[in-house]
Amino acid sequence: MRSSCLIVALVLCSQVIVAQSQKTDWESLLRSIPSPERQREYMQRLSARPHHVGSAYDKDNAQWLLSTFKQWGLNARIESFDVLFPTPKERAVELLEPKKFTATLEEPRVIVDITSGQRAEQLPTYNAYSIDGDVAASLVYVNYGIPEDYEQLERMGISVKGCIVIARYGGSWRGIKPKVAAEKGAIGCIIYSDPKEDGYYHGDVFPDGPWRPKDGVQRGSVMDTPMYPGDPLTPGVGATADAKRIPLKEAKTITKIPVLPISYADAQPLLAQLAGPVAPENWRGVLPMTYKIGPGPAKVHLKVKSNWDTKTIHDVIVTIPGSEYPDEWVIRGNHHDAWVNGAEDPISGLVAQMEELRALSELLKKGWKPKRTIVYCAWDGEEEGLLGSTEWAETHAAELKQKAVLYINSDGNGRGFLGVEGSHSLEHFINGVARDIEDPEKKISVWKRSQLQRISTARTPDDRNEARTRADLHIGALGSGSDYTVFLDFLGIASLNMGYGGEDGGGIYHSIYDDFYWFTHFSDTDFAYGRTLAQTGGTAVFRFADADILPYDFTDFNETMHHYVDDLKRQLKAMQDQTKERNKEIAEGVFSATDDPKHPLVAPATEEVPPYINFAPLDNALDALSRSSEHYDKAAKRISHTIVPLSPEIVKAVNGKLILTERMLTHADGLPGRPWFKHLIYAPGAYTGYGVKTIPGVREAIELKRWKEAETEIIRVAAALQNEASTIESAARDLDAQPTK
Amino acid sequence: MRSSCLIVALVLCSQVIVAQSQKTDWESLLRSIPSPERQREYMQRLSARPHHVGSAYDKDNAQWLLSTFKQWGLNARIESFDVLFPTPKERAVELLEPKKFTATLEEPRVIVDITSGQRAEQLPTYNAYSIDGDVAASLVYVNYGIPEDYEQLERMGISVKGCIVIARYGGSWRGIKPKVAAEKGAIGCIIYSDPKEDGYYHGDVFPDGPWRPKDGVQRGSVMDTPMYPGDPLTPGVGATADAKRIPLKEAKTITKIPVLPISYADAQPLLAQLAGPVAPENWRGVLPMTYKIGPGPAKVHLKVKSNWDTKTIHDVIVTIPGSEYPDEWVIRGNHHDAWVNGAEDPISGLVAQMEELRALSELLKKGWKPKRTIVYCAWDGEEEGLLGSTEWAETHAAELKQKAVLYINSDGNGRGFLGVEGSHSLEHFINGVARDIEDPEKKISVWKRSQLQRISTARTPDDRNEARTRADLHIGALGSGSDYTVFLDFLGIASLNMGYGGEDGGGIYHSIYDDFYWFTHFSDTDFAYGRTLAQTGGTAVFRFADADILPYDFTDFNETMHHYVDDLKRQLKAMQDQTKERNKEIAEGVFSATDDPKHPLVAPATEEVPPYINFAPLDNALDALSRSSEHYDKAAKRISHTIVPLSPEIVKAVNGKLILTERMLTHADGLPGRPWFKHLIYAPGAYTGYGVKTIPGVREAIELKRWKEAETEIIRVAAALQNEASTIESAARDLDAQPTK
Repeated sequence: MRSSCLIVALVLCSQVIVAQSQKTDWESLLRSIPSPERQREYMQRLSARPHHVGSAYDKDNAQWLLSTFKQWGLNARIESFDVLFPTPKERAVELLEPKKFTATLEEPRVIVDITSGQRAEQLPTYNAYSIDGDVAASLVYVNYGIPEDYEQLERMGISVKGCIVIARYGGSWRGIKPKVAAEKGAIGCIIYSDPKEDGYYHGDVFPDGPWRPKDGVQRGSVMDTPMYPGDPLTPGVGATADAKRIPLKEAKTITKIPVLPISYADAQPLLAQLAGPVAPENWRGVLPMTYKIGPGPAKVHLKVKSNWDTKTIHDVIVTIPGSEYPDEWVIRGNHHDAWVNGAEDPISGLVAQMEELRALSELLKKGWKPKRTIVYCAWDGEEEGLLGSTEWAETHAAELKQKAVLYINSDGNGRGFLGVEGSHSLEHFINGVARDIEDPEKKISVWKRSQLQRISTARTPDDRNEARTRADLHIGALGSGSDYTVFLDFLGIASLNMGYGGEDGGGIYHSIYDDFYWFTHFSDTDFAYGRTLAQTGGTAVFRFADADILPYDFTDFNETMHHYVDDLKRQLKAMQDQTKERNKEIAEGVFSATDDPKHPLVAPATEEVPPYINFAPLDNALDALSRSSEHYDKAAKRISHTIVPLSPEIVKAVNGKLILTERMLTHADGLPGRPWFKHLIYAPGAYTGYGVKTIPGVREAIELKRWKEAETEIIRVAAALQNEASTIESAARDLDAQPTK
Repeated sequence: MRSSCLIVALVLCSQVIVAQSQKTDWESLLRSIPSPERQREYMQRLSARPHHVGSAYDKDNAQWLLSTFKQWGLNARIESFDVLFPTPKERAVELLEPKKFTATLEEPRVIVDITSGQRAEQLPTYNAYSIDGDVAASLVYVNYGIPEDYEQLERMGISVKGCIVIARYGGSWRGIKPKVAAEKGAIGCIIYSDPKEDGYYHGDVFPDGPWRPKDGVQRGSVMDTPMYPGDPLTPGVGATADAKRIPLKEAKTITKIPVLPISYADAQPLLAQLAGPVAPENWRGVLPMTYKIGPGPAKVHLKVKSNWDTKTIHDVIVTIPGSEYPDEWVIRGNHHDAWVNGAEDPISGLVAQMEELRALSELLKKGWKPKRTIVYCAWDGEEEGLLGSTEWAETHAAELKQKAVLYINSDGNGRGFLGVEGSHSLEHFINGVARDIEDPEKKISVWKRSQLQRISTARTPDDRNEARTRADLHIGALGSGSDYTVFLDFLGIASLNMGYGGEDGGGIYHSIYDDFYWFTHFSDTDFAYGRTLAQTGGTAVFRFADADILPYDFTDFNETMHHYVDDLKRQLKAMQDQTKERNKEIAEGVFSATDDPKHPLVAPATEEVPPYINFAPLDNALDALSRSSEHYDKAAKRISHTIVPLSPEIVKAVNGKLILTERMLTHADGLPGRPWFKHLIYAPGAYTGYGVKTIPGVREAIELKRWKEAETEIIRVAAALQNEASTIESAARDLDAQPTK
């Protein structure tokens, strides 16, 4: 026990040279193991056939993963759940007037790309969890179909009531488009891929290049995951065989109107038959035509009918028991299911995770024993609505809340720069990892490369200066869109999401062309960054599993919370200023004077200026947080310079408190209107879907002008941060008791 | 003499109610006369056939204008000059490799638009003053072909040496494109109209809408007018019959390489055969293809051969002699020649000017006698290189320098907001005019409408606040691109350029479709703004001609000069900061770290940081200018409140000095490297062409990193501003001598 304590203290303190060699040994070994060639082989095997939820190859992959992990000497199992998963029975998009045109709704095979021809096994192009519907109506182009686009339509005096909308992909997560359209009275929604977003505008199209060809379609779920992800019939509980299920018609996450995705080859004939005002400049794509809004004269028929079946999903779970703190779990996950062959999404991330796991298994064989329990997960059903991770975590919620100290996610990988988002108590930790990982192209650390990129892209001299001088690089906050969601937002487990990218683009997302041919021609073709991701994830897991004191840090967290609160204040101020200014301009006659009578707009109406609201509870909580995080930082630094063994009692007491720090940021009641989302600091926006809203209860209340709710939410968040501060303070005091001489 | 002095004092002082009725009578009458219907008739007549320089209808129009003006009882004459005007004999653009394609180089007739079918009389599509050439080479896409585009090419490691470049229209005046291309070693230049600039991207194309159809071509001159405008063979002197002419090969304003304009229907097959890197995002148009840069594999043949003929141009000049100050001339001009039928450019402006002149002729018939001489001009040969105005003004240079007090230009007109650029000593004056002109759509003053638009489009709260509170709206500075150039830049005559626009777009500029059909379907179709322009121009001429003290003002001028000098300092500071920052990033390894090895860029080299330079002479001159302009303002305000008749001696003395104030801003040696441009405050940029460079000697020296030249130029400009200040001060002292009791 003593000696291990000593090692832990040293792991915590990279300055202490005497023991660094020992740490470095394991880590260096770990990072030397991941092999690009093996990742290539795994990818070829895993993406050889379509492997969506319910498909034969999805199950086959799960079993292959299981047996592979077992071959590596690991304790692996499959956990299965039964989930609602609609697949299309009938699909139609037809132009009825003023011309006839029937959309093909098909992606053709490409000769050089063999797997693109596996038609019998491919899921058709569709948006999963669209409600069934059969509608015909005038068409309206709504740009991205996000709330601000409807504000623009209002200025132009155009309503979508009773119409079918056509939106281009982009600007938000796709599920927002039918959601907002339905709220605005539309009866159907078509989503298409404009070549401006991921087609010829950017480069050669597949198979000559990586970009989306004219018939390429982006499949994807439109389940209302910002309400709750996972099986629509078992909100908040695992979709086990015996789970109580709600009736389909009560499931809130199915769309209210039918929706289908189409290619631009199918979209152009529809868009070309729109009249009405010319779309504003930032609404225009690059199809060779004038983008107009309608409504009509294009009249469109849209039909979607699905088999509303229950399918079984297969999560593959590996457990490496901890030797000293077996009840503290470090969890690592990447999904294995895809929309079709999914070489990039998700296999490129999964194969890195596999090599990471194989590396750990090699370490185990060589005698390494992680102090904490490590859990590696290959999730099923991510694409449809984070099904595998959500149902697993809901099933094991009680145990996870007690034991999980970290969840690290990845989901696809590419060539370029390290991207990390996550809980800000982990910002310092992951910066430390990134400093020790070598970029395969530049032979400098991925941290350094990322820092230099931030210097290069900084918008202001202040940002640039910060990129140069701040000890840690900022990490972004987590919204949604991958399997960390349930861990962070439902359970309050500190989480990270990571991957490399930024150097290659592409337009095969969720199409039949996201396959081995595409990936090995146009992305991380030599899997150099696959190896780097395995090194990054492996090092992070290794360090977190073997640290004695959990390596959370609260100074970056505290600074970030200050930024978020400043942001909220700025946002309110900006809304006040904008409203005052607009009201003034209305009174001055600015809108009528600048309105072109040939293209008239509806002038906005005078609005009440947003009131001042009480931020004092948050300010007080931030003060407490500043004090406690500084205290904890000082306490942690003090013991990091000692070689006196850590007291096991102190370690236990401190970790017992640290493990609560992310949980403290949740509230059992969840966010207003969406109780599944329990984290008070991070959540996907109700109207962004993937995009994060920080301090979401307050921020969304302000955005929606619910002033009373904003103040109530401020009190809830402030209380959480006060508790957080007390817990940190208490952990700091425990650390102060550790002797250093 | 006395009574007239009294009236003048009153004209100067709009607050004095007793005589305002008399002023208002004439002005109201003046503004009541211009007729939209007549403008429509004039336009139909003037644009009935192609009327470019040297064409039968160009001369016919001049003679019709002459007889019309004479019918109105005016003293009119034609002044003719003989100028070099090349017209195409042979033109070819062919794709030789990897496919064959021959550009049509033709604009087809449009059935509903009768004049578009007048092929026999139409000038072919070409760029006038392109040198003859017959070249074949690899093609390179250079975006707009402006200097910063070549910086980007350098970063990409691409040279245009020995290549033919293809540039899209836009980003600068067209003549800059072959000029820079030649400097960079290209051997030919093709310019095309991308639909992003003025085609289907913006709306329906002609004849369904106002925008450029696929075969539409923008003709235009590529004469190097920033070197000197006018006849290339007679720089600085009038191209009279007996003028001494330089040999063609010595003419510096002919392009160095052959150049032709083409439609996008002709451009797309060429662009589609370019390989190499994908064009940066801001280089891409909206043709349905991936924009790549080359060079090649497209190999192109370009041939241009012209008839280098001398043609006679016909300026129509009307003189209304002044009754009190006949040797002070108010000049008003708009050109009458066009590239083809030219309904918008220039006839829409010319017909307004005609109605303005007819209104003045009506006033004359009713007994009004302008105090100053008024000269109305309908210029020929503007399109080719400001030929008519330049040769006329060069011919009459001595007299004009002595007598001209104002030149007001227009050149086309449309629907919307008043646009004015000009000498800032006229800013206050023209604001006063704009306050008294009614906007036909909004029934508020055009000044008010313009102010409200500025509030609406202000980028910062400070700009918005200024738009709300500044007594006068800022006017822009004059670059080049129309007939004011010789008056302002060569002779130092205070000038204004004005027109309405902003509500209708179009893509018929310099094509056969700029005709009566287009204008009467898609622009100021009821000539309401034609009437408004006539009212604006007429009121300005009337007030300037009848004021006793010339209505210059120097407070706005002084403020603007301060802005310009601040701008120069900011620009130098920005260059210093950017160079320091870039050098630092090079040293840090930012460029190598962020470079994608699959798409490598050439890292920039370390550069010397721009030195601090001595702005003190300018600061001292500005101080003097502040004092004198304040003094003059106070002096002018003092006498504006008196009813004591102005002393004729004082008026004479003051005006004698005021007339010099714009001349003082010129220098006989002109700008560095382009002696024709004599104004030290305003000039078209040597590498912008139309776009203005204020304090051009200093600004361009800084831009070109000629630090010594910048300091020399500062001294020249400072001396001019010191002289200006002394002259203003002296005029103010003269005014101080006027008794007010």
